[in-house]
Amino acid sequence: MHKINFCSGPAVLPPTVYNKAIEAIQNFDHTDQSILELSHRSSSIVSMIQETKLLVKELLAISDEYDVLFLHGGASMQFCMIPMNFLSTSTKAYYTLTGQWASNAFHEAQLLGNADALCSSADSNYNYLPSLQQAYTLDNSAYVHFTSNNTIYGTQWKSYPSFNCPIIVDMSSDLFSKKINVHQFDLIYAGAQKNIGIAGVCMVIIKKSLLEKQNKLIPTMLNYNTHLLHESSFNTPPVFAIYTCNLNLKWLKSIGGVQEIEKINQMKAQLLYAEIERNSLFDCTVAKPEDRSLMNVTFVAKNKEIEIAFKDFCKKNNIVSIDGYRTVGGFRASIYNAMPLQDVQLFVEIMKSFESKI
Amino acid sequence: MHKINFCSGPAVLPPTVYNKAIEAIQNFDHTDQSILELSHRSSSIVSMIQETKLLVKELLAISDEYDVLFLHGGASMQFCMIPMNFLSTSTKAYYTLTGQWASNAFHEAQLLGNADALCSSADSNYNYLPSLQQAYTLDNSAYVHFTSNNTIYGTQWKSYPSFNCPIIVDMSSDLFSKKINVHQFDLIYAGAQKNIGIAGVCMVIIKKSLLEKQNKLIPTMLNYNTHLLHESSFNTPPVFAIYTCNLNLKWLKSIGGVQEIEKINQMKAQLLYAEIERNSLFDCTVAKPEDRSLMNVTFVAKNKEIEIAFKDFCKKNNIVSIDGYRTVGGFRASIYNAMPLQDVQLFVEIMKSFESKI
Repeated sequence: MHKINFCSGPAVLPPTVYNKAIEAIQNFDHTDQSILELSHRSSSIVSMIQETKLLVKELLAISDEYDVLFLHGGASMQFCMIPMNFLSTSTKAYYTLTGQWASNAFHEAQLLGNADALCSSADSNYNYLPSLQQAYTLDNSAYVHFTSNNTIYGTQWKSYPSFNCPIIVDMSSDLFSKKINVHQFDLIYAGAQKNIGIAGVCMVIIKKSLLEKQNKLIPTMLNYNTHLLHESSFNTPPVFAIYTCNLNLKWLKSIGGVQEIEKINQMKAQLLYAEIERNSLFDCTVAKPEDRSLMNVTFVAKNKEIEIAFKDFCKKNNIVSIDGYRTVGGFRASIYNAMPLQDVQLFVEIMKSFESKI
Repeated sequence: MHKINFCSGPAVLPPTVYNKAIEAIQNFDHTDQSILELSHRSSSIVSMIQETKLLVKELLAISDEYDVLFLHGGASMQFCMIPMNFLSTSTKAYYTLTGQWASNAFHEAQLLGNADALCSSADSNYNYLPSLQQAYTLDNSAYVHFTSNNTIYGTQWKSYPSFNCPIIVDMSSDLFSKKINVHQFDLIYAGAQKNIGIAGVCMVIIKKSLLEKQNKLIPTMLNYNTHLLHESSFNTPPVFAIYTCNLNLKWLKSIGGVQEIEKINQMKAQLLYAEIERNSLFDCTVAKPEDRSLMNVTFVAKNKEIEIAFKDFCKKNNIVSIDGYRTVGGFRASIYNAMPLQDVQLFVEIMKSFESKI
């Protein structure tokens, strides 16, 4: 039974990722061994990790000024690694508070040093993006931190101001969903389980020169330089999780890369937002179209009765994980790269059919 | 072609783990969804993690004074988490230096506070275990740290002294290989990829009362209490890696648990050590039989020519990952739980056959 999985992460991956992951568990790279039992120092695994890194660099057109790391701990571990590495006693970090994950990142920086909010939309449960200037000159700034896409609230930054300090962005839920200019940023990180691979690995794209500003005396595993010097294999890396990224990025390349997927992602989001606005039973939670996420489409029913009835209708139609986050309520359709356009079209038909039946 | 994989980790797992992992990628727990795309908050995944925890408690007869955590970062992340959580400015940590991993753990404690070596076998490249007293009273002690089994050097502690402070043990390479009295220890940790599951998850068994002595102001992800309060799901846990632990521990239970596997592990090790001692071409690297590991059997050839010839002979006989660690050289046969007795018997035959041919 084909289920349409709108989960915000771990999320659906292309069928080819599942199939090739299974093949690799049976026999990886003609070794007659399972990928699950192979040494991370074996040539097959070292090559696979290297290939994954090159795929990232190719797909996002990243220059050699940057390195790509695959780290343990998820994006949440980055929340503390960033201030540990780059916030000193004499500098300050600036955070844009656009959701719960942004606030969690801010909290860790406050715990470890001096951090301020550059802007916040907490006053309205993060249902909009604060207005920003075109350029900022921030005092004693160690860095400024953004969350590019706010999965819970359905907002997404479409552009960034310029700053007199490094720009660090959590792109956990929209990296590889569209063309970006990586060279605009100093550090990009992303938990893999939304748009890249499975849970258990975090991708970091780091401008090597950023390490010149690094603090001393950082615990080894929390020091970016450790992982840079050891090609993400200082300790045993999460091999299988990295392999799912490899497979997914190969799939992305095969369909034309970020340029092509961006077109499809825009079509999917436009289709869905248009239906929510047209449908008499639902409302978008994010008022301004320019703030809306192309990855997580959040909406609410006109009343509780409709909400309950639509949840039931979704269940009957094999739609899963469509519930909104508990602090927002309503519905959230996460439509990352691996969500096919046809499934979004089908969901729109289901919304229309529900409207006609109620 | 059946390969005998003596890798020290990631290591071989029972065939049932591979087969059931594949089934779960196709359709997990009758959800018609892949385990790789399911939310970590879904009932299927929450139940699976809970079941894994109960399996750990059952197999090792652990009381409710302890909790079991599944953390990101591998054992190497524990090296810094331990002093961060439990070493204060007024206390000292004591480390038993019996190998590289023990020394790495010591290094992190020194970086973060006051730490001393309780004993060391560095003078002889860690090829023996230092003699210890039966009981210790250590000044201002925060904790004492052991590495139960030294994978690189082939040594293994068979018993532990008593201390006037908490005992913390890295059991990455022998947890679940034999009966232990967990209640003798305050914190046990183990990277999964040797004897428990695949790379990408670290198991922690923690005495809850240890948290009463915890430091303040620890970054959220590095605080044991975060993971204890959130049942190892504060952030997205490495679901698939945890599932391989679940499958492997179910297999262990099905064959009779740690009591049964201990007998088999002893047979395997005895068989192999006996052959190394009998065979005219090889020597054990660990002189004292009482220091020798039941998990990693390290040995060297009488000369370089024999070493090269035996490596070649192994290759031809489908023996893989038998090379010793670069700082020790020679050979290392890692014979964790999933290595069948028959494969060790076959390897002994291969050693005999090699001796007769050279």
